[in-house]
Order: sequence, then structure tokens, then C-alpha cells
Amino acid sequence: MFITFEGPEGAGKTTVLQQVANRLREEGIKIVVTREPGGIHISEQIRGIILDQQNTMMDARTEALLYAAARRQHLVEKVIPALETGHLVLCDRFVDSSLAYQGHARGLGMEEIYQINKFAIESCMPDMTIYFDIHPEVGLARIRANENREVNRLDLENIHFHEKVRAGYLKIAAAEKERIQMIDASQSIEDVYQRVLHIIEARMNR
Amino acid sequence: MFITFEGPEGAGKTTVLQQVANRLREEGIKIVVTREPGGIHISEQIRGIILDQQNTMMDARTEALLYAAARRQHLVEKVIPALETGHLVLCDRFVDSSLAYQGHARGLGMEEIYQINKFAIESCMPDMTIYFDIHPEVGLARIRANENREVNRLDLENIHFHEKVRAGYLKIAAAEKERIQMIDASQSIEDVYQRVLHIIEARMNR
Repeated sequence: MFITFEGPEGAGKTTVLQQVANRLREEGIKIVVTREPGGIHISEQIRGIILDQQNTMMDARTEALLYAAARRQHLVEKVIPALETGHLVLCDRFVDSSLAYQGHARGLGMEEIYQINKFAIESCMPDMTIYFDIHPEVGLARIRANENREVNRLDLENIHFHEKVRAGYLKIAAAEKERIQMIDASQSIEDVYQRVLHIIEARMNR
Repeated sequence: MFITFEGPEGAGKTTVLQQVANRLREEGIKIVVTREPGGIHISEQIRGIILDQQNTMMDARTEALLYAAARRQHLVEKVIPALETGHLVLCDRFVDSSLAYQGHARGLGMEEIYQINKFAIESCMPDMTIYFDIHPEVGLARIRANENREVNRLDLENIHFHEKVRAGYLKIAAAEKERIQMIDASQSIEDVYQRVLHIIEARMNR
């Protein structure tokens, strides 16, 4: 089974993903935890181009195509082999991140981003996606608390940007109720963890 | 005006493109001659990943997405600025190469390759495309004559592959008669040159 974790930074998804993975491993379940580019050489090289600070001229569509290329290779080299050998794959961010961030928040269009990602992943959509929903202010406050820093102009821009990201996620969640399980991530990490564990276990026993 | 040259290796398109460019420059026309990745840093970096001999695991769809990404950046940084400053842009290979080679010959599907390239180029399709049509045997014989080497097993595979490439080009040419001018490239280079020059001048005076 292929399960993805989605949501903004500060929603706690990475922490909860690790806790859930540890718990399920204790129960004897074979698990692969991953996130793009996942140590896949080609995907790391692609990510290197995206993050190269000299590449100030990079166009948003070039970037979207590079993300889709890195996703494809990570899927083919890591996710699919793990699924084929009977592992539960928990992946931190996947196609919905591109839809929410690049498609909706950056304005490239969710349908267009979906088309290139459909080419990248073919029929390999997640069996289930857990979306950590949180108000951008709350998520950003958590990040700030961690990093112990002042609010600046960029943070305020971030709130507007992250509101658009959230709106994108909520659109996907509304359109794909079968696949996407929405979690109220403003609860305590312990409560979120219990809820996610319950959802995954229920699905595995279905 | 944006004109692309398409066809297999050995069809003479690169030679003829240079001759036509030289002639039109003498007539005082502002010309930019280019081919992907066209010296664009980001596109060169992407091409570096595609050509990296260590990347034996590269999936065909990853490659197609990388080609589209390199195309996008070359278009945005070089082709569009040249068109906006009133240049005639002659580009050696463009979107049709991906359709014929990856879409048709490699079997990824021409419609699917068209979709990701449409995302990459938006509405910036060539005003005219000159397709150099030639039997694969004739084209390969020309390459061999240049390189002075024996026929080997790979060449024979190449013929089958290049037959599929040609079939792909012929499909596009049949579907887009307005845009694509098909040239019989089995004629002498001088005859092909005269024909291409005539077509371009006729179009420019239209």
C-alpha cells in the first residue's frame, strides 16, 4: 500500500510520519519511509539544478517539469520496487504538493500541473493520502517557535502564499474524498498521531 | 518569425540551415540560429544529466520530462527574446523531434508527449516547420559515407528505429499541413537548399 502525507510546513506531518512508521514497524509491518528525491542519484541531480542559487533565471514551468522528472525517477527506482516487494510505503509529500504549491499558489494551474504529473506517475497514485489541515498562521507560529525568530515581511508574504497553498489542498480534498483523509492538524501532535495511526490501521484491516 | 528544421540525422538539415541563414543574413535579415540546449546554462545542466553515462537507470519518461524542461528554458531565455527583438529564429529541432523520437519511435505516445510539451511551450509553436523527409537507408548511408565505417548490428537496429521515427514525422506532417512543409531530402543538398530558401522567402513575403 502506498500512503502519502501532505500539508504545509509546521503541520507536524514529518514528525507524525516517523512516529507512525516506528509504531507499525514494531507491529512487524515492512515499511519504507521516503520523500523525494529520496537518495535516488538522478533525482538528486535534478534537485541540484532546482536549488542551484545561480539559476535565478529559472522559469516556473521549467521548475515544474524538473520536479515531475525527479518524481518519476524516485517512483520508478524506489517506491514501485518497495511496493512490489510487499512494503507499506509512507511518502512525505507527493503529487498533491505540486498541485497545491505550483498549480494553485504559484498560479500555473492545477489541471496543467496534474497533466504533467499524470505523465510522470502514470497510474501509480497513492492508495491513500493524509492531508494535515492547519491555518497558515498556526503552522507558521509553530515554525517560528522552533526557530525562535521574529516575524518579518517575508513571513507576512508567506501567510498569503500559504493561504493559497491551503486553498489548493482543500480543493483537492473536496474533489477526491475517497483518496484523501483530512486531519485537523491544529490538535496536539499526540492527538494527530493517534488519529493518523487509527486511519492507517483501519485501512490496512479493510 | 519562428521556423524549425526537423528530420533524421543524415537528411542534411543542419547544413542547409546554415546555408539558408548565411544567405538571408546577406540580404540584411536579422537572424538567430539556434538548437537546444543553445548555450542556456540551465538547459545545459539538464542535458548533462540526460547524457551522463552513469545514469543507466534513467526512465524514458524522466528523460522526456527533462527534454521538455530544457526546451522550456531555451525557449524563454533565447527564442522568445530573439523573436521579440524582431529576429527571424531558425531552430534545429524542436517539439516535433520529441513527438517523432520519444512519442512514436520509443513508444511513449505522441499525444502524451504533446501534452507535456504543450505545457513547456504554451502557445509558442513554430510559425513554420521544414521537415526533411528521407528513407532511413539513404540517411544512414550518408552518415556512413561521412564517417567511413562498416555497417554493424546497431546500424540495422537503427534502420528499424529510424523507420519508426520517419513514420512519426509523416503522421505529424499529415495532421499539420498548414505548419509543416515537407521537403524531399534525398535530392542533392544544393537542390534542397534552393527549395528551402524558396519556401522561407515566399513565407516571409506573404
